[in-house]
Amino acid sequence: MKRKAICLLSGGLDSTTLLFYLREMDYELLALSVGYGQRHVRELAAGLLIAREAQVPILQLNLGILGPLLKGSSQTSFDVPVPEGHYSADNMAITVVPNRNMILLSLATAWAISERANLVAYAAHIGDHDQYPDCRQVFIDALREAIKLCDNNPPELIAPFSKIPKAKIVSLAETLKVPLHLTYSCYSGGEKHCGRCGTCVERAEAFYLAGVTDPTEYEDAEYWKKVIPDYELKK
Amino acid sequence: MKRKAICLLSGGLDSTTLLFYLREMDYELLALSVGYGQRHVRELAAGLLIAREAQVPILQLNLGILGPLLKGSSQTSFDVPVPEGHYSADNMAITVVPNRNMILLSLATAWAISERANLVAYAAHIGDHDQYPDCRQVFIDALREAIKLCDNNPPELIAPFSKIPKAKIVSLAETLKVPLHLTYSCYSGGEKHCGRCGTCVERAEAFYLAGVTDPTEYEDAEYWKKVIPDYELKK
Repeated sequence: MKRKAICLLSGGLDSTTLLFYLREMDYELLALSVGYGQRHVRELAAGLLIAREAQVPILQLNLGILGPLLKGSSQTSFDVPVPEGHYSADNMAITVVPNRNMILLSLATAWAISERANLVAYAAHIGDHDQYPDCRQVFIDALREAIKLCDNNPPELIAPFSKIPKAKIVSLAETLKVPLHLTYSCYSGGEKHCGRCGTCVERAEAFYLAGVTDPTEYEDAEYWKKVIPDYELKK
Repeated sequence: MKRKAICLLSGGLDSTTLLFYLREMDYELLALSVGYGQRHVRELAAGLLIAREAQVPILQLNLGILGPLLKGSSQTSFDVPVPEGHYSADNMAITVVPNRNMILLSLATAWAISERANLVAYAAHIGDHDQYPDCRQVFIDALREAIKLCDNNPPELIAPFSKIPKAKIVSLAETLKVPLHLTYSCYSGGEKHCGRCGTCVERAEAFYLAGVTDPTEYEDAEYWKKVIPDYELKK
């Protein structure tokens, strides 16, 4: 019998690549996508198209009602502007959504128990560590322990990308023929990627470092080069 | 400045007593109540009246949409009958809602971060341990560690009743003048308590063991005496 996995799918580059990576590993897959009142709700539409392309059943929950619990982030409070600059810059701290990953992973875990799935997977990567406490290895390890104890037949939490940088995810995506043109990363949430927010800069930089052509259309396609460190541009 | 706590409030006896206990400790309190498609939705109404009586602001979220994630329990699948008998009997396993407490506590933690609250509290007690993995001390300890790591300013998870039996909670409630008549415990979810489900039996037994008059009107007020262990009736 195939092992079964629930994959958190935001519609971004990392979780999409994870979905195709797990599919390649021959897991039976289910995708979980959650609206939590995010400014970049555009990613939810991307998630649907990606799941269709991957032929993976997707459960999309719109929990916009969670808004009052998640105040203070630029991604959930529309009166807090989305910062521009490099993904790892100090001003990106405002983009952290309080305890988002524990909420999403606890929902995925519940679904995994209901579906008797073996794994719950999410796509935290090493570049997330600077800003997002709930992407760090210590958090992943601690939550994995809690998940082991939450039920008599719990799934295992995995984060296969937690020790690699985003550029490696882009390389892997190319190998796996992931439809990266369908993915959406922009924090500003417009129809096109803005090119100036932390995730747009991180995205453009990752394609550059991986030596893969970036299919993304950015409003400002030059900005990222001004904010990534010099030594990277010289690579 | 007063320390601030978020208390998960189901509307049952345990969480209500916890709310009044924390109030007595002079915390600034917020109550969080969550609908997750539970059969015993009647408890949500109880939660509102209790919060009003305690003069504690309550946030009640109806996430009935979570239904598809929480299949298989008698409390979320209406085609699975609610079992009758003693709370610790083997047939009560079907009442477990997959990963419910991690979901609720992750939401409470997010709210705590947004509100800069110091504590997140829930009312797991020692009698829950037989059936509910997510009430056991090992789970509480593991999730406390994960919560410590989920944010740069995380709240602390506490479960002050995790080592005491429900009868002690009833005694404490009496001391604190908790309006127990407003609380609702029944898994069957009718307007009156059924008297035959695990939580009704546990409730009646706890009042008996505490020597406190039970204000609850049960459809079947005699059933509990037939299913609690003999040695307890002789106490």
